[in-house]
Amino acid sequence: MQWGGDKAPHEVVKGSVLAAQQFQDSEILLVGDEKAIQQELASYGTVPKNITTHHTSQVIHMEDPATYSIRQKINSSITRSVELVASGEAAAMVSAGHTGATVAAATLHLRTLKGVRRPGIAAPFPTKTGVCLVIDVGANIACKPIHLFQYGVMTTIFSKYIFGVKEPRVGLLNIGEEDAKGNDLAKETFALLSHSQLTFVGNVEGREIFDGKADIVVCEGFVGNVMLKFAEGLATGFLSAIKAEAMKSFWTKLGLFLCKPAFAPLRTKMDFAEYGGVPLLGVNGVCIICHGRSDSKAIYNAIRVALQLSKNKVNEHIVSELEKTNVPAASIT
Amino acid sequence: MQWGGDKAPHEVVKGSVLAAQQFQDSEILLVGDEKAIQQELASYGTVPKNITTHHTSQVIHMEDPATYSIRQKINSSITRSVELVASGEAAAMVSAGHTGATVAAATLHLRTLKGVRRPGIAAPFPTKTGVCLVIDVGANIACKPIHLFQYGVMTTIFSKYIFGVKEPRVGLLNIGEEDAKGNDLAKETFALLSHSQLTFVGNVEGREIFDGKADIVVCEGFVGNVMLKFAEGLATGFLSAIKAEAMKSFWTKLGLFLCKPAFAPLRTKMDFAEYGGVPLLGVNGVCIICHGRSDSKAIYNAIRVALQLSKNKVNEHIVSELEKTNVPAASIT
Repeated sequence: MQWGGDKAPHEVVKGSVLAAQQFQDSEILLVGDEKAIQQELASYGTVPKNITTHHTSQVIHMEDPATYSIRQKINSSITRSVELVASGEAAAMVSAGHTGATVAAATLHLRTLKGVRRPGIAAPFPTKTGVCLVIDVGANIACKPIHLFQYGVMTTIFSKYIFGVKEPRVGLLNIGEEDAKGNDLAKETFALLSHSQLTFVGNVEGREIFDGKADIVVCEGFVGNVMLKFAEGLATGFLSAIKAEAMKSFWTKLGLFLCKPAFAPLRTKMDFAEYGGVPLLGVNGVCIICHGRSDSKAIYNAIRVALQLSKNKVNEHIVSELEKTNVPAASIT
Repeated sequence: MQWGGDKAPHEVVKGSVLAAQQFQDSEILLVGDEKAIQQELASYGTVPKNITTHHTSQVIHMEDPATYSIRQKINSSITRSVELVASGEAAAMVSAGHTGATVAAATLHLRTLKGVRRPGIAAPFPTKTGVCLVIDVGANIACKPIHLFQYGVMTTIFSKYIFGVKEPRVGLLNIGEEDAKGNDLAKETFALLSHSQLTFVGNVEGREIFDGKADIVVCEGFVGNVMLKFAEGLATGFLSAIKAEAMKSFWTKLGLFLCKPAFAPLRTKMDFAEYGGVPLLGVNGVCIICHGRSDSKAIYNAIRVALQLSKNKVNEHIVSELEKTNVPAASIT
């Protein structure tokens, strides 16, 4: 368990204390500046016995380049947490720090699971009916068809064991619904997914994600990242634009006040804190990445998901599922 | 002027009649099934004198493959309209039909403007403060840095002459704000834009589009198309989800009713009909592409924009602006 993010140490420690109280058979290790963590813990009176600390002296800042910082700042909370997972001292890690550095450190030190070509980040997008996991949203911006295919396999396992979806429907993000649409990456991935053991529902266009056409949508990391951030911007902007307009007159202000409960379910769906971070799938270890703005609820949920991943042996299931796949040798380039 | 789309002939003819009444010094040629057009026109009593028809016997359906259909259906409204522009018989065309076929036919028959490598579609995205033109949204899914750079130049001219923006700020869609971020395409395009005559504001992340960080954002056609459709889906889904929730109780229903005026400005911004279609920039002729669902207002506005493009000699300005650019020869691959 690593800390970091814009709201560390307060919210991170608070979420960790909540998790320690809830999951008493687990041990939570807070990695970071010990003095600051201890000061924060002191405010709780009795600190849960299953919380310990691990001191690190360096900090990877948001503006630091990812690869440079993980090599130079070997005593940062990110690099140390990864090492603790790699050595088996920790079963899982959660980070609200520098996303790029976390991905780079995890990929470098944990390495990939047997058979996995590239790790990917699966982020939940709200839909009409629930959630759609979009993978990858930024870990891999040089995707090949085999990577996208494996993302489909890994996220199917994640969805089954963590979200309890019996037969997750996998879609391919594309610019049209017809089979032959899209760029080379999309066309070749389409062929791989069509002949796989996955429940492949075909191409999914941008507008169909919200419709809930698929439980999982695979895409190239650049596209996924743009879409994730665009969604954040649009949703926030949308709500504040409505609010700003409504504040202009008494009646619309009253209307907005009365209407508020109608926004709540949507707000919950859009609230990434509910899902508790996003998993970096494919590394040999459990690594959950949180938003820099994560509050205690997000941290608590991230720890919950990390424990679930570890206890349900999701990585072992991924490895055995990948062994079952019969991808044509020509596709593995 | 070509017709087509889900609402042809009714809405298309209605929008054309409006435009003919408004722009009396222009001639509007309706290309399509003459009998159906005449029947529709008959309902108007007196048909404006500046409306004429041009009969075509074939139809390109939405499910037809683009390239196949423009070669096989040479007497369709799309191919004939393009030919009328190519021969100089028409100054501009507007199509609410098959987007892929329109792009393919226009690229094939009109060819590109002098110096232009690839045509691109510029679509308006709503922002806090107005509109951001995102180019390309689907004409070119094999983008090179030089294409993106030229999109920046072409859309700058479009924004100046059509939207009246004095010094349009151009951004590059990327997955981080730092200069060195992104895939190879993004990095190389960043270098080209940095050394250009354009007002380049650097990388723009997905979430910054709504913030209005740039007036123009250049991106690869696959990403742009996904984002455009995702925005449509999210906006529609968002509003209907709020509405569905609000309908559940009397008070929220009343709230929504009172609140309605607050949604209006946003609805207008999201309403693509306001902008009247999107221009296919870079072809040697004026070509405006409308949504298949376009109503008469959208058609009217599309004709208005087409006339503006033609009268303001936007294409000539694009050619001379491109001649001014001093792109390193190595980039032109």
